Amino acid sequence: MFLKCKAFSYSELIGVCWVLANQFLREYLDWPQLVEEAGSIVPANARSLREGVEGILIMGMGGSGIVGDVVYSLSSERLEIPVVLVKDFRVPRWVGRGWLAVAVSYSGETIETLTCLNEVIRREAQIAVVASGGKMIELAEERKLPYVRVPPGRTPRSSFPALLLATLKILKSLGIDLGTPREEQIIEFLKREDTLKLGHELAEKLTGKIPVFMSSTKYYPLALRAKDEFNENAKTPAKTEVYPEGFHNDIVGWEAWFGPFSMVIFKEVGNTTLEFLKETLLGAGLEVTTYELSNTYVEEVIKWSQVVGIASVIVAKKRGLDPKETKHIAKYKEFVRRTNI
Amino acid sequence: MFLKCKAFSYSELIGVCWVLANQFLREYLDWPQLVEEAGSIVPANARSLREGVEGILIMGMGGSGIVGDVVYSLSSERLEIPVVLVKDFRVPRWVGRGWLAVAVSYSGETIETLTCLNEVIRREAQIAVVASGGKMIELAEERKLPYVRVPPGRTPRSSFPALLLATLKILKSLGIDLGTPREEQIIEFLKREDTLKLGHELAEKLTGKIPVFMSSTKYYPLALRAKDEFNENAKTPAKTEVYPEGFHNDIVGWEAWFGPFSMVIFKEVGNTTLEFLKETLLGAGLEVTTYELSNTYVEEVIKWSQVVGIASVIVAKKRGLDPKETKHIAKYKEFVRRTNI
Repeated sequence: MFLKCKAFSYSELIGVCWVLANQFLREYLDWPQLVEEAGSIVPANARSLREGVEGILIMGMGGSGIVGDVVYSLSSERLEIPVVLVKDFRVPRWVGRGWLAVAVSYSGETIETLTCLNEVIRREAQIAVVASGGKMIELAEERKLPYVRVPPGRTPRSSFPALLLATLKILKSLGIDLGTPREEQIIEFLKREDTLKLGHELAEKLTGKIPVFMSSTKYYPLALRAKDEFNENAKTPAKTEVYPEGFHNDIVGWEAWFGPFSMVIFKEVGNTTLEFLKETLLGAGLEVTTYELSNTYVEEVIKWSQVVGIASVIVAKKRGLDPKETKHIAKYKEFVRRTNI
Repeated sequence: MFLKCKAFSYSELIGVCWVLANQFLREYLDWPQLVEEAGSIVPANARSLREGVEGILIMGMGGSGIVGDVVYSLSSERLEIPVVLVKDFRVPRWVGRGWLAVAVSYSGETIETLTCLNEVIRREAQIAVVASGGKMIELAEERKLPYVRVPPGRTPRSSFPALLLATLKILKSLGIDLGTPREEQIIEFLKREDTLKLGHELAEKLTGKIPVFMSSTKYYPLALRAKDEFNENAKTPAKTEVYPEGFHNDIVGWEAWFGPFSMVIFKEVGNTTLEFLKETLLGAGLEVTTYELSNTYVEEVIKWSQVVGIASVIVAKKRGLDPKETKHIAKYKEFVRRTNI
C-alpha cells in the first residue's frame, strides 16, 4: 500500500519522497510572501450591498471551506446578522434575495461549491467569489460580481492564508468588517517563532500516531485544519474534538481508551476548561501536547496552520509517502465527472 | 484502568457489568413506550410568536444538543428563516429580540445551556424550553415561557426520542412546523425490525474497534449520535465523518491507514457518492458496515439511534465496563461547580 512505484528500492523510494516533500514544504515556508502577495490584491467589481442584508452564506469545501469556519468564529463575536456555512451540494431553503453568498474555491471548479453558486444566482442573492481561476472567476467576470483572484499554481491547502485574507478583504469591501489584522502584522507574527522547528517537533510526536486535535469552539477552524492536513499530507486518519461540547460525550471515550492516539490541544491563554481537559487526558495515560494561543485570532490561526502543515509534510516524508499527491480525491473527482452528479 | 473495584475478581466483575448493562439496556428497549409517552405531553404556556421571527437558535449540549442538529437538517429543507446551533457558553452576537431561542437540556441544569438561556433572556429573545426539570423548568414557569417537560428519571442519552419529539412539538405549537411524523408512525417503524438483534450484530463488529460513523450532511446528527453513544456507553474513542466534505480531506487519511478502525456508513437509498465512498474504503482494505436508510428522516434517526445505543451498551458489557457511569463527565461537572465558571 505504501509503495509508490515497483521500480524503486525502499531506500530509493524514501529518497524520492524526501525530494517531493522538500519541494512541497516550500509551499508552506513561503507563507510570509504569500500573505504579502494577498495584501496587494484588490477586489474586482467592489460595490455597496443592497440595504438590509439578512445573513451571510459561505460556500466552500475542504481547505477553501475552512475559510468559512474562520469567518463564522469572527462573525459570531462581531456581526448583527447570522453567518451560515454550506459544505455540500445544497443551499438551505432560507437563503434568498436578502442574503450575501460568498463562494470560496481555490480551483474555482469545485463541483459542490459551483452547484451552490448557481443556485444562489438563481435565487437572486448578492454574490461574491474568491478563487484562483476556473469557472467561478469566469462567471464573476461575466456577471460583474465582486471577486478576488488569489495567486494560482499552488495546492488549495497551501493557499489557506491567501484564501482567508482574500475573503476577509472582499467582505470588508462590501462593508462587512471582521477586524482583520494588517498583512505586516501577520507576517511579523509568523516570523516571531521558528515555525519550521515547531513543525519538526510536532512531526516527531505524531509520526505513527492517530492525532486528535482539540480546541475551544472558537478555535475549531484550526483543529479542523490540522486534522485535514494530516489526512491530506501525511495520509493519516485523524480526529478533531471541540470543547466544552466534548465534555458531554467524547471525554468518556478516553476513560478506557485503546489505539495509537496522540492528543494536541490548542488552548487560549486563560481557558481553564481546556486546562482541565489536559489534566484529565494525562490522568487517563494519554500523550498530550498543548499549545498556548493568544487572542490575536487570525494570526494564531494562520501561524498554527503553517506549523501543522509543515508537521504533516514531514510525517509523510518519514512514512515514505508523497505529501502532495491525493489519490482518493482524484478518484472522487473522476467519479463525479463520470457520473455527472 | 478497566477494573471498577478491587474487591471483585475479573469474572465477578464481568458478572456485575452484565447486570448493570442489562438494566441500562432497558432504557433503550423501551423507546416505543417513551415515544408514546412523549406523544401525550402538551406544551405549557403555548402562544403565538411575535410577527417576523428572524431566526431560530437551538441551545443544547451532548445528547440534548443533537436535537438541534436534527432540527437544523429538517429546517434547511423547509424553513424560510435560518437556524443556528450553540453548543457552548456563548450566544452569537446576532441573536437578539427578533429571534426564537430554544433551550434543550435533559436535566434542565446544564451549565452551558443555562448560561446561554440567561443571555437570550437578557437580550429579550422569544424563548422556549425543553427539559425534564431543574432550573430551566423553574425559570420557564416563573416567566411563563413556553416549555415541555419530558419524562424524568432517565439518562439524557436514553431520552433522545422524547427530547427530539418534545422540541418538534413545541416548535409546532409556536407555528414552526417541521413535518414531524405522528408517534404511532414512529412506533410502528421502530417495531418493524428487530433492533435488539441489529444492535447485537453491530456490537459484534465493533468490539475492540475504533468506530468511524460516516453519513451525508443530512444524516450527520445520526453519525454524531452514534459516536457519542460509543464514547459514553462503550467508553471507546470514536469518530464521525460527513460527506461530501470528507471527499476533500478525510478520504485521503485512509490511503495509508493504520489503527484498529471499523467503518459504519449510514447511506440513504440512491446516494451514489456514499456508494463510491464504501467502494473506496473497501478498496483500501478497511472493514465497512453499510446501513441503507430511507427518506423517512425522523423515523430513521430514532431507529438507528436506538440500534447504536443498544450496540454501545453491549460493547461495554463485553469490555467489562459499566455503560451507564460516565466518570469523566462527573469530574467535569464537579470542576465547573468548583471553579464557578
